[in-house]
Amino acid sequence: MAPISDPRLQDLVARALAEDVGQGDITTESCVPADRVGSGRITAKQALVVCGHAEAAEVFAQLGAAYAPLVAEGSRAQPGTVVAAVRGPLRSLLTGERVALNFLMSLSGIATHTRAAVEAAPGLRLVDTRKTAPLLRGPQRRAVKVGGGSNHRFALYDGILIKDNHIVAAGGIAQAVQAARAQAHHLLRIEVEVETEGQADEAVAAGAEVLLLDNMDDATMARIIARHRGRALFEASGNMSAARLPAMKALGVDVVSMGGLIHQARWVDLSMRLDGIDSGAEAPST
Amino acid sequence: MAPISDPRLQDLVARALAEDVGQGDITTESCVPADRVGSGRITAKQALVVCGHAEAAEVFAQLGAAYAPLVAEGSRAQPGTVVAAVRGPLRSLLTGERVALNFLMSLSGIATHTRAAVEAAPGLRLVDTRKTAPLLRGPQRRAVKVGGGSNHRFALYDGILIKDNHIVAAGGIAQAVQAARAQAHHLLRIEVEVETEGQADEAVAAGAEVLLLDNMDDATMARIIARHRGRALFEASGNMSAARLPAMKALGVDVVSMGGLIHQARWVDLSMRLDGIDSGAEAPST
Amino acid sequence: MAPISDPRLQDLVARALAEDVGQGDITTESCVPADRVGSGRITAKQALVVCGHAEAAEVFAQLGAAYAPLVAEGSRAQPGTVVAAVRGPLRSLLTGERVALNFLMSLSGIATHTRAAVEAAPGLRLVDTRKTAPLLRGPQRRAVKVGGGSNHRFALYDGILIKDNHIVAAGGIAQAVQAARAQAHHLLRIEVEVETEGQADEAVAAGAEVLLLDNMDDATMARIIARHRGRALFEASGNMSAARLPAMKALGVDVVSMGGLIHQARWVDLSMRLDGIDSGAEAPST
Amino acid sequence: MAPISDPRLQDLVARALAEDVGQGDITTESCVPADRVGSGRITAKQALVVCGHAEAAEVFAQLGAAYAPLVAEGSRAQPGTVVAAVRGPLRSLLTGERVALNFLMSLSGIATHTRAAVEAAPGLRLVDTRKTAPLLRGPQRRAVKVGGGSNHRFALYDGILIKDNHIVAAGGIAQAVQAARAQAHHLLRIEVEVETEGQADEAVAAGAEVLLLDNMDDATMARIIARHRGRALFEASGNMSAARLPAMKALGVDVVSMGGLIHQARWVDLSMRLDGIDSGAEAPST
Amino acid sequence: MAPISDPRLQDLVARALAEDVGQGDITTESCVPADRVGSGRITAKQALVVCGHAEAAEVFAQLGAAYAPLVAEGSRAQPGTVVAAVRGPLRSLLTGERVALNFLMSLSGIATHTRAAVEAAPGLRLVDTRKTAPLLRGPQRRAVKVGGGSNHRFALYDGILIKDNHIVAAGGIAQAVQAARAQAHHLLRIEVEVETEGQADEAVAAGAEVLLLDNMDDATMARIIARHRGRALFEASGNMSAARLPAMKALGVDVVSMGGLIHQARWVDLSMRLDGIDSGAEAPST
Amino acid sequence: MAPISDPRLQDLVARALAEDVGQGDITTESCVPADRVGSGRITAKQALVVCGHAEAAEVFAQLGAAYAPLVAEGSRAQPGTVVAAVRGPLRSLLTGERVALNFLMSLSGIATHTRAAVEAAPGLRLVDTRKTAPLLRGPQRRAVKVGGGSNHRFALYDGILIKDNHIVAAGGIAQAVQAARAQAHHLLRIEVEVETEGQADEAVAAGAEVLLLDNMDDATMARIIARHRGRALFEASGNMSAARLPAMKALGVDVVSMGGLIHQARWVDLSMRLDGIDSGAEAPST
Repeated sequence: MAPISDPRLQDLVARALAEDVGQGDITTESCVPADRVGSGRITAKQALVVCGHAEAAEVFAQLGAAYAPLVAEGSRAQPGTVVAAVRGPLRSLLTGERVALNFLMSLSGIATHTRAAVEAAPGLRLVDTRKTAPLLRGPQRRAVKVGGGSNHRFALYDGILIKDNHIVAAGGIAQAVQAARAQAHHLLRIEVEVETEGQADEAVAAGAEVLLLDNMDDATMARIIARHRGRALFEASGNMSAARLPAMKALGVDVVSMGGLIHQARWVDLSMRLDGIDSGAEAPST
Repeated sequence: MAPISDPRLQDLVARALAEDVGQGDITTESCVPADRVGSGRITAKQALVVCGHAEAAEVFAQLGAAYAPLVAEGSRAQPGTVVAAVRGPLRSLLTGERVALNFLMSLSGIATHTRAAVEAAPGLRLVDTRKTAPLLRGPQRRAVKVGGGSNHRFALYDGILIKDNHIVAAGGIAQAVQAARAQAHHLLRIEVEVETEGQADEAVAAGAEVLLLDNMDDATMARIIARHRGRALFEASGNMSAARLPAMKALGVDVVSMGGLIHQARWVDLSMRLDGIDSGAEAPST
Repeated sequence: MAPISDPRLQDLVARALAEDVGQGDITTESCVPADRVGSGRITAKQALVVCGHAEAAEVFAQLGAAYAPLVAEGSRAQPGTVVAAVRGPLRSLLTGERVALNFLMSLSGIATHTRAAVEAAPGLRLVDTRKTAPLLRGPQRRAVKVGGGSNHRFALYDGILIKDNHIVAAGGIAQAVQAARAQAHHLLRIEVEVETEGQADEAVAAGAEVLLLDNMDDATMARIIARHRGRALFEASGNMSAARLPAMKALGVDVVSMGGLIHQARWVDLSMRLDGIDSGAEAPST
Repeated sequence: MAPISDPRLQDLVARALAEDVGQGDITTESCVPADRVGSGRITAKQALVVCGHAEAAEVFAQLGAAYAPLVAEGSRAQPGTVVAAVRGPLRSLLTGERVALNFLMSLSGIATHTRAAVEAAPGLRLVDTRKTAPLLRGPQRRAVKVGGGSNHRFALYDGILIKDNHIVAAGGIAQAVQAARAQAHHLLRIEVEVETEGQADEAVAAGAEVLLLDNMDDATMARIIARHRGRALFEASGNMSAARLPAMKALGVDVVSMGGLIHQARWVDLSMRLDGIDSGAEAPST
Repeated sequence: MAPISDPRLQDLVARALAEDVGQGDITTESCVPADRVGSGRITAKQALVVCGHAEAAEVFAQLGAAYAPLVAEGSRAQPGTVVAAVRGPLRSLLTGERVALNFLMSLSGIATHTRAAVEAAPGLRLVDTRKTAPLLRGPQRRAVKVGGGSNHRFALYDGILIKDNHIVAAGGIAQAVQAARAQAHHLLRIEVEVETEGQADEAVAAGAEVLLLDNMDDATMARIIARHRGRALFEASGNMSAARLPAMKALGVDVVSMGGLIHQARWVDLSMRLDGIDSGAEAPST
Repeated sequence: MAPISDPRLQDLVARALAEDVGQGDITTESCVPADRVGSGRITAKQALVVCGHAEAAEVFAQLGAAYAPLVAEGSRAQPGTVVAAVRGPLRSLLTGERVALNFLMSLSGIATHTRAAVEAAPGLRLVDTRKTAPLLRGPQRRAVKVGGGSNHRFALYDGILIKDNHIVAAGGIAQAVQAARAQAHHLLRIEVEVETEGQADEAVAAGAEVLLLDNMDDATMARIIARHRGRALFEASGNMSAARLPAMKALGVDVVSMGGLIHQARWVDLSMRLDGIDSGAEAPST
């Protein structure tokens, strides 16, 4: 299959390389000859769910080297598993190592963290939020999907979610929903964040099609769901943890959103080591 | 004082806003009138060390609103502490809220995490590494300093650090050091990563001025330091934790580098709430 | 009200000026002294609905001159009506004239053309499509709203619309709807383009929430609407003209989409003429 | 022939795709498998002069698909004529369809409209003006040439044209021409817009080499041309239509400029339909 | 006068500062407190013609400091003359010093070098060529004008100059001129480079309006000028020096072009020294 | 060897071409057919040291033509030596000629000028300064190395050099050095500019590791070097010329910095001439 170029990925990686390389990798350029070619391997140092191949491959491609995934994204790797191999000019391998690992370690961290939550309540739709590292929302959301989760709206431009501050600013739930319905295009549903049963009733009456049940106890959620089932979808958020997810599933919420899938994930450990240096002959075709 | 504009900060924030706002904040634009003005406050929801005012202020400035820090960067806030106030068009406050909080929550997370490590061994120089989120190295390194740590080289272009893979690629420690010395400008020291006493001896003999003692036990470090004190600086890394830092200080290492200052930090919790809406009169001067 | 800067508008206008000015307005720079200041007026040469003030004002602002709208966007102007006044360095007025008029003439053209369609069937929701001039979708969609119309989804990223080619590529309506529902976030409805009653039945059965009734006769639309009213929204498109809109309204379609609101609109005529040159004294504050 | 890459075309198309695709074509990505490959054809739905192959081909190239023109630019197509074929990953064909058609429909519209004017007075030099859609001047001017017309200066930087407002600002025709001659490089002629015979005399006396006869009746133009033939070129503009062009040719004007070649042209209709889906095997080489 | 912002100048200076400052001026930021304010002066170290105020002022403006020219561009300065004063945060003065001086030293060098040539043959039109430092053509051409010279076409897009290689590629002078005349817009003259009398005759016969007399001896030029005076303009180039210019003027050439006005100019010497540090009070309004 | 793409070089050349080509090379496009292919050669017109192949090759690559170096960078060419050959579409060769030559002529000029200085004192380390043409520092520094010199720090971000103005602003040498040492990362040495023996003593006492001996006479330098040998490196600058370099070497300075290596170099002369036009057949593979 001819790969379809993704200009967003290319731009992200180009900027990441510019950040780390700038005017040049002065260590590598001084002590590694330009014509030396070889290979290396990237190894998991702990148990993890792999994510980040697209970014890592783009890093090495932009440097004229090749990257071969050996463990598919979304699969588990154990300590010692070789998850990818690289080959090309040694300078390229050394210059790209850190940036590629930074993508792999952070994105695999999110996928690994998400997987644990997903497995706590199989079949429940778990989604991320807009609490993402600035400029990295695209890859971080992809890591959530690779980990088994789903995505919420991407940003402010592709979904209507009326939150507490909007209600205050608009002068009430009904006013806010009505205004949103008039302006939003007809392929969008309207979601309203509610904190009480009364707000839920008001939102549904105003035409909200999705309710964001924020920081509620289970009993309140149960009553709201019972009363409005069939007229709205239910998203639960706030104080969520893997341990609470089975209860959410039992309550019949449609979606649980957890910003922590992304922002409470820590990097997992991977490292790269050169494992071969050519006698000086050919380079990989790129 | 006339503020000195920082084009890197402006660009970072403009991109972060573009990522989240894109073609428009369709919720806010539909349900909040353009001429409504008010204020809000940003509150800590947990104990934390504050960081991110510059980024948050730039977010609101680019949207035509004003941001006033109430707790200085580097100071501690307790749950409930109001760390900043905002004022301006309600649309601007609502549209900027998430991006500003994303900076504050992530950077305060790093500052808070770093502070804990710094306090484990007062006086020891703790530095970050190049294990940073792509495109966010500048702010993340600043958070380390705000937290009380110091910075290592920024990137590949402003420091010579010969690591294991370079030694392999160059054909040996002596070759690598010699080549680096010939090419590097005369304001740079040469650092070499060593894993054994023999490598340390070889590096110093070749002219290395800084030794990166990687993943060593305390006894080995002690012997190396004793042998080469005065001829090189000593940086320790690998398997570091706050608990081990007093021992490092006792050993006399000059610098301890910990990537985890950044990549093992989790976001801390802050939230924004509107606290006043004007009767419709004036907007803030911007 | 402090104006909220819109980086998309700034960028659009900066590029438009760069396109027309490039290395310099060699006529103006050679024959108009840099310190000469004056004013001018922009006049409608035909009946039209005004649109484009934001763009025109930004043009002159970027050149250091001021632009004052005299007829509100969405209002009608007659031949001879002065719709805006400009004031500033003569060089700026002359250099910006053409770019500003190009925005005003094209956008007022769309608003004028849309207004005629809207008035043919008051109360019917008329929307644009993605048939817009490349790079100008934002302003052109705004002109549709200024003219009294509404907007469809902005682009491929903020709405699900399964068209004939998607159905072919996916292997059927049911497969396509099911896949879209699984991947799309929960604030999006699914729209399916149908050309026959059978397709409409299939789409609704699969869970489509909006039907795009494409190029159908009135009788077929009537039958589909009668059968699925309450389970889906109905959008009609294809072979639409102002004359047919009352019939659409009578049929009870929810939305009519017409690409021609934008791409069949012609520019309307406006011109700018200097009407005062200062004796050399002050310039406007900008 | 190795194609010479045109960075302006690449940039224009990349921005057009970014405008329409943004964070992703959520319909196509959800319901069309990434590895499905096939072909399609683009068909004229009305009589037209073809223009836009370069832009359409670049659209599909940036998405990893191939575009083959079947009717040369500048040739006529009838309703039902297949003007181009596409082949590649189905996702690429579907994602690029609208942007490619937007170029083809708008540019063919200009070429078709221009052709009609050109055929009204064969041999007369018809040129466009700077009344073009912002950011699209390059392609729109190309469409005029494809339609059989010629181009005026591209922009403010590559030609001297002293218009009424310049004359007012400069203090007179003689002053303006003299200043322009002193500053302009020696490969540029000076053109002056005149509205009366007296102005024409004044301009020629001042050294103008081209007269823009604006909104004049035929008799006035005839007198001016008779008096200054051989000392200046004559460009006629204002109130031009195809019907009036033979008279212009008879009068001996050298050039007729018509902004309407571009801004009064409407889009013509073309559509794309998939016509083959592979069994899953190979993709086109790109 | 309200200054008209020049986006090209802003972009040039922003890039120049980014080149020199990058992630930060680590010397200044470490040893100069952020709130210290003061002033400095820029002094000529040799006799020179001043040029570069616009660029230097923009450098300091982007850093939040103020720059006041004390000697007008185009005027002479002697060793010790203070040509400009600066005031603002000390950090800004120190960080901007080198970039500002690099503009002043290089552009004043060109102005000084051009002035000497201009004074060798007062009244003769001396122009630059396209032999300019990449990315710096705009400022370098301005320096030629400040020095008393004039400009040739800016670039390949705003003038027709058929050189020896074009004639070879086109198959002859007549073919080249005819093709250029057909394609070029009607405000452009056609210039042809000729090396012999025969070529000059051929070019004029083909319609060339400007002859570039390249590397000719005076006698040949005299014969060509005598034969074609009134039918073409004459530009002389090749082996030009200040000493030869009076002869060119006597021959009656219209223009002499000398690439060396720019590329044989050397930087002149200026330096900046702080001359006052405030007690800590106010900063300049910017 | 697979060439490693250098995004900085690509961007520099793309901008240089945009500067010169803009909307198009109107001469070449009008008089050279698009399908004509041929070759040319670039010849030295004077004795010079060759530099600029990378830039020239990138120019032609971006235009779809091939560039083959025939004399290695750093080697000498005599008048008449063919230093490179080009081949491809004639349009590409003609359009790229000037930009490519501008790089070759300017960079070879620096390499040639540097070589003369280097040969005046073999073995002495000669370095450039930050006195470089804005936006061209990278290539100009490379030319110094090609000429046989070495490089100083690249910019303000990768080296600590405390100059006279810093000392004034910081309040003294000791304060400045101490502050720099605290903030700078541990792979950086601290350099201090000194003008007297007293300052040298003070700087070394404060911990400076490199002394910049500015504008000193030989005797003073000798005393400073004798007193601090082994505790600091010595860089001499100011009033340097090739003639003085042997004395510097004899004094034992470690480095001599000369801004004039770059800013006093003049362009050397090279030209390009077409030497073959194909009968119309094949183009080079690119």
